[in-house]
Parts: sequence; C-alpha cells; structure tokens
Amino acid sequence: MQATKRRLLEAGLRMLLERGYNDLGIQSLLKETGTPKGSFYHHFESKEDFALQVVDAYMVEVHAGLDACLSNEQLPPLLRVRSFFEATRDKYGRDGYLGCMLGGLGQELAGVSEAFRERIEACFADIGAHVATCLEAARARGELPAHTDPEELSALLINCWEGAALRCRLRRSPAPLDAMLDFYFGTALGASSSMPA
Amino acid sequence: MQATKRRLLEAGLRMLLERGYNDLGIQSLLKETGTPKGSFYHHFESKEDFALQVVDAYMVEVHAGLDACLSNEQLPPLLRVRSFFEATRDKYGRDGYLGCMLGGLGQELAGVSEAFRERIEACFADIGAHVATCLEAARARGELPAHTDPEELSALLINCWEGAALRCRLRRSPAPLDAMLDFYFGTALGASSSMPA
Repeated sequence: MQATKRRLLEAGLRMLLERGYNDLGIQSLLKETGTPKGSFYHHFESKEDFALQVVDAYMVEVHAGLDACLSNEQLPPLLRVRSFFEATRDKYGRDGYLGCMLGGLGQELAGVSEAFRERIEACFADIGAHVATCLEAARARGELPAHTDPEELSALLINCWEGAALRCRLRRSPAPLDAMLDFYFGTALGASSSMPA
Repeated sequence: MQATKRRLLEAGLRMLLERGYNDLGIQSLLKETGTPKGSFYHHFESKEDFALQVVDAYMVEVHAGLDACLSNEQLPPLLRVRSFFEATRDKYGRDGYLGCMLGGLGQELAGVSEAFRERIEACFADIGAHVATCLEAARARGELPAHTDPEELSALLINCWEGAALRCRLRRSPAPLDAMLDFYFGTALGASSSMPA
C-alpha cells in the first residue's frame, strides 16, 4: 500500500475511534497528516469510501489477531478464544480505552446508512464465524457441553463484549471488559465442569 | 411541561435514536415540529443542552419502567428484572429496533465530550443501582447464590444488554436481545438451581 494512503487510513482509524464519523472533518485529517486534498481524492472517492476503507484496514488487524490467537496450539481452545479478547482489551488500552471502532460506527450510522449497517454487521458476523470455529473445537474436546451451539455462543460473546466495550469507553477503564470475560468464561467453563472431558 | 417543549423533546428522542447527535439538524427538528427558532432557544440554551434534556426525558421513561417492573410483587425478583428488559425490548420494537439511545449517544460522543460521557455513564450507573436492589432481593430469597455480588451482576446485565442492543440495531431484530436474556438468566437461574431456596 502506498505510504500516503496508509498514513491517511491510520490517522482515520484514530480519529474515527475518538470522534466518530460525522464529527470527523476531512480538513482536519488532511492537516494532521500533511496531505494535499487532491491526494486524498486520488485514493478515496468520498468520506464514506474513506471510512469504509478504514473499516477494512481495521479488519485486517482483527484477522491478524484472530489468526494468531485462535491457532495457538499451546492453549486449549477456550483459552485461545479468551486470549483474543484479552489481546483486544490490551489494544484498547493502547488507544486510551476508547472502546471498539466497529461498535462506535455501528451505533452512530446504522440508523441512517445501509452501507455502514451492512458492513459493520458483516464484520461482527465474520469475527463470530472465526470464534465459533474455535468454540466448536472446545466442544469437540469436551471443554463445553456436547449440546452447545458454537455459533450462538460466539454471537453472545461478541455482543456482550461490545456492550462491555461501550462501558469501557464511558469509564475509560478495562474493568468492564475483564468482568465480562470472567462472567462469560466462568459460565462456559463452569458448564463444562459438569460434563465428562 | 409546556406543549412545545414536550413536542421538541419527543421529536428529539426519535431523531437522536435514528441519526445520532452530530447528524441531527436543529433546522430539521424545527421543521418537523413546526417550531419557530426563537421558541427552541427559549426552552434550550444550545443543541447540547437540548440533547441532554432529551436524555433526562428518556430517563423519566426508564424510571417509570423500572418502577413498574421491579416493584411487581406478582413475580419473584429475578423475573421482575427480566420483565424490565423484556419491556425495553418491546419498546425498541415500537421504534423499529434501533437499539438504545443511551448506548448510541455514549458511543458517538464519549470520545469528545466529557458532558455526555459523564451523563450517559451516570444513567447506566443509575439503572444499574435499581436493578442491583432487585438482584439483592433475589439473592436474599435464594434465587441467586449467597456469594453473589448484586452490583457486579447488575452491571454485567446492563453492559451485555447494551451490546445486544447494538446488534439489534444492526440487524433490526429482537433476536440478539432475547438470546442475551436467555443466556444471562439461564446462567443466573442455573446457578441458583444448585443452591438451597
């Protein structure tokens, strides 16, 4: 990827996470990155196109994290899943606990933009499918009850996480994220403890 | 409350839920409600003041729901709590499943506005305190394990609910809300079933 485009996407990610979409000024973005206007429109058709490409760039990072955590054979499957969310919590920490950009854009724009509503929903469904695969591995190894539906359990995890991420943003604290993970994995592991391994 | 002010707040609630804060135009609000500009500024100092008063009006409704559900002696305490969230789900349905206005404003504005960050956090803390009182009643009656921390469990419920509300907004569906309530109350009641009543 061209350096200018990468710089714009990186600044866009920071600014969208902090300010959201409607409060993001292209002028501020150009000023902050020292980019001429023509160069922005060489890489992006519009502000909407830019933000959707920021989402794509964000998802590249998410997939790198999913791949690294969920394929870690050093850990049993449930702990692999947990490690992905713990790594995400640590990433939020590096951003100052502003929460999740996908949740932010979804909340802000899903009422008025089908493009964003569908894209953000597709991102969560995509993350959910990867997490579900690992939860299925946990089920197969007896870490979860045999009747567990990995896709349902995965969607619950992601949704509860997003709520905790909102509260993390409001409180500027990782505490709601940790409490949610303890609750979820305590429950899931608690359920498994009554099952034969 | 004066009729014009009430009309502005009601329209503001609908518009903030759909469009968020930055995309809400005062001109559109005035046009939709047939209100002269001077009248708006008679009742509200600024757009921010208006939105914060919409939040106050929203919380009046929330408190009416909390009072009605949590004091319902016909139901055991845990089901009173659940009935509040089911009533909230039904309210979301009447709005077209756009989710929770508090979550929307919190996501959109908490990165840039201390006023909104603090107010929305205070709203969740307030709802959490009421729900915790009812969870404490559930604990006292043996519906929850004796070691349960009602405040922690209440915060978890509200945070997980907010994540489910985001997904409800993205999917325009109550399914994520129902799945979350089944998971949470299944877990809580499941935990209680191993305890003496």
